[in-house]
Amino acid sequence: MTKLVFVRHGLSEWNALNLFTGWVDVDLSEQGVKEAKEAGRKIKAADIQFDLAFTSVLKRAIKTCHFVLEESDQLWVPEIKSWRLNERHYGALQGLNKKETADKYGADQVQLWRRSYDTLPPALPASDPNSAVHEAKYAHLDKRVIPEGENLKVTLERVLPFWNDQIAPAVLDGKTVLIAAHGNSLRSLAKHLENISDDDIMGLEIPTGQPLVYELNEDLTVAQKYYL
Amino acid sequence: MTKLVFVRHGLSEWNALNLFTGWVDVDLSEQGVKEAKEAGRKIKAADIQFDLAFTSVLKRAIKTCHFVLEESDQLWVPEIKSWRLNERHYGALQGLNKKETADKYGADQVQLWRRSYDTLPPALPASDPNSAVHEAKYAHLDKRVIPEGENLKVTLERVLPFWNDQIAPAVLDGKTVLIAAHGNSLRSLAKHLENISDDDIMGLEIPTGQPLVYELNEDLTVAQKYYL
Repeated sequence: MTKLVFVRHGLSEWNALNLFTGWVDVDLSEQGVKEAKEAGRKIKAADIQFDLAFTSVLKRAIKTCHFVLEESDQLWVPEIKSWRLNERHYGALQGLNKKETADKYGADQVQLWRRSYDTLPPALPASDPNSAVHEAKYAHLDKRVIPEGENLKVTLERVLPFWNDQIAPAVLDGKTVLIAAHGNSLRSLAKHLENISDDDIMGLEIPTGQPLVYELNEDLTVAQKYYL
Repeated sequence: MTKLVFVRHGLSEWNALNLFTGWVDVDLSEQGVKEAKEAGRKIKAADIQFDLAFTSVLKRAIKTCHFVLEESDQLWVPEIKSWRLNERHYGALQGLNKKETADKYGADQVQLWRRSYDTLPPALPASDPNSAVHEAKYAHLDKRVIPEGENLKVTLERVLPFWNDQIAPAVLDGKTVLIAAHGNSLRSLAKHLENISDDDIMGLEIPTGQPLVYELNEDLTVAQKYYL
């Protein structure tokens, strides 16, 4: 039985402003920093010792990872960052205010973009100066894998290879693993681990800053799931 | 020509108290945090973009690494931590006040422990509860490699395999590399890179928080060396 712990990053500066964020690399807010530290203290109180930590290449998740490890006295744990754990890419909606977007496109359309499993947001093409193709952190990638906009289905499809190639082998090797990431990359992993249907998955909200512990059997099925 | 940048961590809580530190995992002081952030701002101003960052498993170096990367807008850079980049192990002197130690053993003896290339400090055996063999962060190591106390010669001997197996291949691959580490692990690397003699090396002081840039030729000889 091995433990896998999810920590969803807390409030970012853009969450606080009610903007669509996605791959935009905004910082944690003060509240988000507090949430991350509190998550670390809970992990320390539960006496969970990690062998390995995974996070995205977005600073709100990376800093959450660092605060969690520091507060639980294990900053020395190896940490692997991957774009595959990034938040869902929100396409051309990134940077827009959620309320203004609803006023412009209608609340139903925005609700669909936010809550449908397989509706894509409007695309942010590589030709747009705000596209991630221009960022140094993605320079080593084949540009064709950089999304123009994702729904949860597509998010899951790019998270899954990282689960299969990096995280699952560590878990199968008996390692206790931390994943500090985002609402939708963690939701994708939860869907895969718990076999949640396409219809039900959008109803799953993993709360921010509350460590979610999965105890996994040897075949990677879930033996137990609980929040600290 | 590739760039290799050293950052020596700034003032720790024990430096401030004038204690021998070595492998004791003390935190940065407020002053040390400021130094690390300032180093990051200098790296940003010099427009240095890292491909890879290396640090020790001691939090004063890890946090320095994180502050440097964060302040230079590259927190996403892959980071590898290794015990081989740790500070020189100060044996049974760890935790002792430098002045009290001089009063007890004599200033000459303390000077010898601090400034001789190959004089070992009094040993901290594995049987001592303060030995690193009892720490989770070293649990994956063959206990025989965990030092009881090191001089600079021994420090260099354990740093060098990491240079040869991890850092040098990255540099030879054209990667721009950050090493955030300690006075004596960086001094060991400087000795190796610059071919400094056993007699001269103890006179080399790398200042804290000041990024030291090496521009290396293809055969890893030093083309240029300067502080930011």
